[in-house]
Amino acid sequence: MGGGVVKLMLGNRDKYERILGAPLQLAAVADLRVKLVAALGVPAKLITRDAAAVVTRPDIDVVVELFGGYEPARALIMKALAAGKDVVTANKALLAEHGGEIFREAAKRGLAVGFEASVGGGMPIVRTLREALAGDRQRAVYGIVNGTCNSILTTMTEDGVEFSAALADAQAKGLAEANPALDVEGHDSAHKLCLLVALAFGVLVKPAQIYTEGITRITQADIGYARELGYAIKLLAIGKDDDGTIEARVHPTMIPQRHLLAGVGGAFNAIYIHGDALGATMYSGLGAGEMPTATAVVADILEIARHRLAEGSARAHAFGFPIDLMKGARVKPMDDVVCEYYLRFMARDKPGVLGAIATVLGSYGISIASVIQKGRGTAQTVPIIMRTHDAPERSLKRALAEIRRKKIVHSAPAFIRIEEKL
Amino acid sequence: MGGGVVKLMLGNRDKYERILGAPLQLAAVADLRVKLVAALGVPAKLITRDAAAVVTRPDIDVVVELFGGYEPARALIMKALAAGKDVVTANKALLAEHGGEIFREAAKRGLAVGFEASVGGGMPIVRTLREALAGDRQRAVYGIVNGTCNSILTTMTEDGVEFSAALADAQAKGLAEANPALDVEGHDSAHKLCLLVALAFGVLVKPAQIYTEGITRITQADIGYARELGYAIKLLAIGKDDDGTIEARVHPTMIPQRHLLAGVGGAFNAIYIHGDALGATMYSGLGAGEMPTATAVVADILEIARHRLAEGSARAHAFGFPIDLMKGARVKPMDDVVCEYYLRFMARDKPGVLGAIATVLGSYGISIASVIQKGRGTAQTVPIIMRTHDAPERSLKRALAEIRRKKIVHSAPAFIRIEEKL
Repeated sequence: MGGGVVKLMLGNRDKYERILGAPLQLAAVADLRVKLVAALGVPAKLITRDAAAVVTRPDIDVVVELFGGYEPARALIMKALAAGKDVVTANKALLAEHGGEIFREAAKRGLAVGFEASVGGGMPIVRTLREALAGDRQRAVYGIVNGTCNSILTTMTEDGVEFSAALADAQAKGLAEANPALDVEGHDSAHKLCLLVALAFGVLVKPAQIYTEGITRITQADIGYARELGYAIKLLAIGKDDDGTIEARVHPTMIPQRHLLAGVGGAFNAIYIHGDALGATMYSGLGAGEMPTATAVVADILEIARHRLAEGSARAHAFGFPIDLMKGARVKPMDDVVCEYYLRFMARDKPGVLGAIATVLGSYGISIASVIQKGRGTAQTVPIIMRTHDAPERSLKRALAEIRRKKIVHSAPAFIRIEEKL
Repeated sequence: MGGGVVKLMLGNRDKYERILGAPLQLAAVADLRVKLVAALGVPAKLITRDAAAVVTRPDIDVVVELFGGYEPARALIMKALAAGKDVVTANKALLAEHGGEIFREAAKRGLAVGFEASVGGGMPIVRTLREALAGDRQRAVYGIVNGTCNSILTTMTEDGVEFSAALADAQAKGLAEANPALDVEGHDSAHKLCLLVALAFGVLVKPAQIYTEGITRITQADIGYARELGYAIKLLAIGKDDDGTIEARVHPTMIPQRHLLAGVGGAFNAIYIHGDALGATMYSGLGAGEMPTATAVVADILEIARHRLAEGSARAHAFGFPIDLMKGARVKPMDDVVCEYYLRFMARDKPGVLGAIATVLGSYGISIASVIQKGRGTAQTVPIIMRTHDAPERSLKRALAEIRRKKIVHSAPAFIRIEEKL
């Protein structure tokens, strides 16, 4: 994940400077794998093996902890806070277990600990609960928060293989660790649930308080019977506020196949939040991966930089960019937009009509992907339905006008744009 | 929508004071419908018909504009900014058309114009694009941003009725205005797309630059043929950054039925964002309605209040609540959690087994919703699958232990919790 952060910091330097009005500089990278870091384009003089020295360096404002695990991560973060640094971390295990201590220390010193990357990867859920939904009272937060388990369950469901084969497949694809226990036993989900519960309900929960059951005992038989009953099996982290008592549990759960969560496959995460006033909202995205998670780390760094730079207000720009630097957009003419089309022609049902239409379309470079022709053999007006391959709107409009002009069809053809690759 | 804001301000007063460390006071409500406002519990002395006087009152910090339309909303907002007030508005038509002027004035004066409520109702998308995704470069933003059109298309698809009947139905349910043109002709979606494009790509677009086509010409026939071809028809607002040229268009679109957007029905909104590093993320929730939209207005008010109150940093609390006031959670014992269960027993296929299992379950107050029994008539061990009605986990565990103790079944029964009502 550190690699992703470095890539973004180097690759999007201009964008960040535009947002902040000042450059954002990578001051040091502490890693034992010096060559790996150098290969990312980090100058040798910025690379060190001595993390403890970096976190107290006077010229550094923000410390990003991406070691994972409890120690030395905890000690380094506490040391950084004591030295007046803001901190960004993706370490959910640490925050779930020692968050109270860390956040209290930061609050006491007026420092930030950004942790957007610790739940949902790059999918923004921390800020959403903390700020965007602050006006409401949350009643429930639940969802798929471990991409490894979701990949394994998806493979089991789609390929009909047992857990051990699906796990091996996930390991081969880099979606599961060599030691997968933290994921498949549900502990990673429980760590994330601790943070979600704190954000949603304003109370602190420790992992030991969360009933945690993983997916290792799910069988093909159960997946099959679940399907027969109309359900899908997902590993859910579930938090509810039951009038002050918190329900917090992680376990395989059968949910109706029509539920949006049932359609969230592979390494995707998806979280539902239920609020008194807002009702249900849903958030979905890739919950892991070097680059997705790095975007969340950088979002936290940018917010901290904004506050560090602020003399007056540390508020974000209305559109995220300084309004005075925003230009009018160059908008593509609709005629240049390229997509597939659904076409409906109403024509007398006689031989040659389909051919005549196809010929005109072809002369404008529009090729046909599929045709539905109904009622062949009668003498009535019948619909001819076509799906085309990609074509610019200009060509389509000209072709349809010619088809109409030549009176091949009765009324104006209907067309609807298809977005196949959204 | 004003009613919703008033309800939240009065109903969640304690939560907001806890977040801010200071009370948030409703200072005045300007509305011609004085009795309606009074009925919400607003003291008579706070109600006025004179909006122009309110927006310059020295004791007021934040002006919330919920009139809609261009005037007098524009003039009142400019007057409020000139008087040093921060502003919150849900007025997408105004911001799409005159946003440049309004945001420049606010930036010049160091004031905020909050507009989270203007896109996606209470579903947080403004902050998400502006802050949470700031580390990434966005390539596309698209989705269903008008709940009225989505309701109408859902009704047409599910009930097989034509547009005019579905519109009348939506009007009867309060989901469409008496004059529905702004919604069904796509203009409301285009206004929202202007704001999404500005947030995603950092450029300004006017509604006149957006190709806009509504849903009035969609027929049952087209919906039927779309289904045959494997597609659903949705009104999409689509914004893409094609290397500096912006694609911005609103029109009925056929999308594959397997796409998550195809499953977003009724008054729900859903927005996809594609980023270089993050890939696709999706956000869904109720895009309209008094209370959902009010939560977004209040989130903006809270953020402004935080900045107004800040002496040092205006940063939000790590979990949204002051860490020192956060208590340890009272967590419900798993034994007290109530849900439905999927049960799988492996038993010799002989008469009476099913009855014996059901009897034990019944003695613990667990009733059976459905049963699948396979292989009747053979002498092998066969699975008996059951779905139960709601029961506490304590009862289930005791019943399963008794079934095992009485040797009614061969091996330990498997069970998976069902969440039917998530």
